[in-house]
Amino acid sequence: MDKIYKDAVELHRKHHGKIEVASKVPLENRHDLSLAYTPGVGQVSVEIGNDPKLAREYTLKRNTIAVVSDGSAILGLGNLGPEAAIPVMEGKAALFKKFAGIDAFPICLATQDIEEIIQTVKRIAPVFGGINLEDIAAPRCFEIERRLCDELPIPVMHDDQHGTATVVLAGVMNALKLKKMSADEARVVVNGAGAAGTAVTKLLLSYGVRDVVACDSRGAIYEGRADLNDEKIQLARATNRSGKRGTLADVIREADIFIGLSKAGVLTEDMVRSMRNSPVVFALANPVPEIMPDRATAAGAFIVATGRSDFPNQINNVLAFPGIFRGALDHGIRQFTEKMFIDAAKQLAACVIAPTPDAIFPSVFDASVVKAVAEAIR
Amino acid sequence: MDKIYKDAVELHRKHHGKIEVASKVPLENRHDLSLAYTPGVGQVSVEIGNDPKLAREYTLKRNTIAVVSDGSAILGLGNLGPEAAIPVMEGKAALFKKFAGIDAFPICLATQDIEEIIQTVKRIAPVFGGINLEDIAAPRCFEIERRLCDELPIPVMHDDQHGTATVVLAGVMNALKLKKMSADEARVVVNGAGAAGTAVTKLLLSYGVRDVVACDSRGAIYEGRADLNDEKIQLARATNRSGKRGTLADVIREADIFIGLSKAGVLTEDMVRSMRNSPVVFALANPVPEIMPDRATAAGAFIVATGRSDFPNQINNVLAFPGIFRGALDHGIRQFTEKMFIDAAKQLAACVIAPTPDAIFPSVFDASVVKAVAEAIR
Repeated sequence: MDKIYKDAVELHRKHHGKIEVASKVPLENRHDLSLAYTPGVGQVSVEIGNDPKLAREYTLKRNTIAVVSDGSAILGLGNLGPEAAIPVMEGKAALFKKFAGIDAFPICLATQDIEEIIQTVKRIAPVFGGINLEDIAAPRCFEIERRLCDELPIPVMHDDQHGTATVVLAGVMNALKLKKMSADEARVVVNGAGAAGTAVTKLLLSYGVRDVVACDSRGAIYEGRADLNDEKIQLARATNRSGKRGTLADVIREADIFIGLSKAGVLTEDMVRSMRNSPVVFALANPVPEIMPDRATAAGAFIVATGRSDFPNQINNVLAFPGIFRGALDHGIRQFTEKMFIDAAKQLAACVIAPTPDAIFPSVFDASVVKAVAEAIR
Repeated sequence: MDKIYKDAVELHRKHHGKIEVASKVPLENRHDLSLAYTPGVGQVSVEIGNDPKLAREYTLKRNTIAVVSDGSAILGLGNLGPEAAIPVMEGKAALFKKFAGIDAFPICLATQDIEEIIQTVKRIAPVFGGINLEDIAAPRCFEIERRLCDELPIPVMHDDQHGTATVVLAGVMNALKLKKMSADEARVVVNGAGAAGTAVTKLLLSYGVRDVVACDSRGAIYEGRADLNDEKIQLARATNRSGKRGTLADVIREADIFIGLSKAGVLTEDMVRSMRNSPVVFALANPVPEIMPDRATAAGAFIVATGRSDFPNQINNVLAFPGIFRGALDHGIRQFTEKMFIDAAKQLAACVIAPTPDAIFPSVFDASVVKAVAEAIR
């Protein structure tokens, strides 16, 4: 791992970042300039001035999204500030281009105030066809996303929530196929009630999973627990029908599926042993998962997924976000819905013709993925 | 001209804009992804988090500027709103790349409020190494630029002001060489006291021109005129030493140089005839100049320049802004100064080895221009 870190720093230093801006039109002579810039461009501006919707036809807006972060929850590293967010957002922009042909630009904000973030994104929105929010801490990410979805005429998605939830749901779908179990029979424990855990829980419920218990660092989230914020109160209402209380170790007994979006090492072999037959373990903490795959398997896990590329079944958002925004831009979607994410998860799951316990996801380099996911976003 | 407009619209429609985002690093396999994105990028973020200055080494910030407009003064077309500004800012971004290798991104703001513009630019600044303000109406452009220069640690320039002023000053320098006249002897009339006219006037004064009379649509600007805003009061104090009053026709008599940054057709042949020997006429209104070149010449003009590419002596900001920002980014400049713009104008003027009345500017395609201008920005 040390070598990867050194090589990554060296790559970034050598290229001074990862993306560049390129011209799509010739600029070789005065005639070229007179079309791309003055005086010709004036006519383009006049026509857009008369009908702002034409910006989608005549400008980069049609194919361009902003990747917006306030640097408050960078990867699993925490609140490192806007400059530290740049390489992650820039990397994401590079992935958008590589996997979906989308032009994405990193916007890293020098504020972590909810209202200021909302205002700023609204003010820079005219250039963009969509907004990908990224690495913004919970719970403020929820209000920011909700408000921007309501107040902007372009699609807005917090990828840590819905990108993750879409890929996790696809994995759950294929895991259930392998277990020959229906969604409404499955007992699921989601550990971690931040942006990702909350969105995963909600999407599982929308899909038809009925028995979900969400846990945070203090254990099961249930109605009436004294220390819950608004988001967790809603979560308590929607989940945990039997009102379970206690630690993760208490509530994971007899569960079928564990989904960790929490911290390194919190899932023990004993906990895996306490689950029902052929348990499924998604241990997504990065870079060190809730339980290492070999230990989960030794404790009887039937399917293990992590966020890492060096083990089978990597849960990687790049399976979802390029296709989700590709579909939104191509079909002029103004707001994402839970149904779209479920449809995207179904398509993503279906990209694996014959899932096996070691292959519940398609390869990120499978070119059919982005098309399938984009097709689901209508 | 109609054909140019049609062709320009067609070009924009065909390509859906003019710029795209491209990856500078390979993304062909899992190893590539692990360096450009997780987990490798995490180390890059940690290092920048510890020392935000490293963003200049590890990210696009080093070579990237924002081209920011509120759409309030688009070309000569007026207040058409942020969407209508996109093609102009996008064109400018394409020119930045073509002429200076700079990655520029258009930011078109859904606000025309001074404080909101300042706030927004400050909040999105972390990603950028510089800010090019563009097509923001006077007088608010002055305060916005001043405040952003003071409050941001990266260079900020309103190109309509200083890019234009730099190119005009270079033209004046070469015109004075041809006239064998020194700057302090020249009598100059600047018609138009918006962003460009004000900046041109100030830069001429800084360079050493002593006799400048600025006019707005109501005629000469002089101390004590009742209807002046703050910017014009300052202009009145710094110019018009002999306190001339009256219309453009009144104050242009016996002038050596006319610089129009105003409106089509406001300069008559009679006015040109009333100027001193071998007068110089810069008629920069776009697309139709203050006087057509053939008529100015017929009335005795020795040198005529316009903003148009279909006549000799085109005054085109693309001679200045790419080199100015190239120099600023390469030399880590935090604030531009008038001295830098004067030095840039000198270098630009010197790119023409042997000026003639029909060739006081270098070609925009002369590759030595950007280097010479960048070198002047230190």
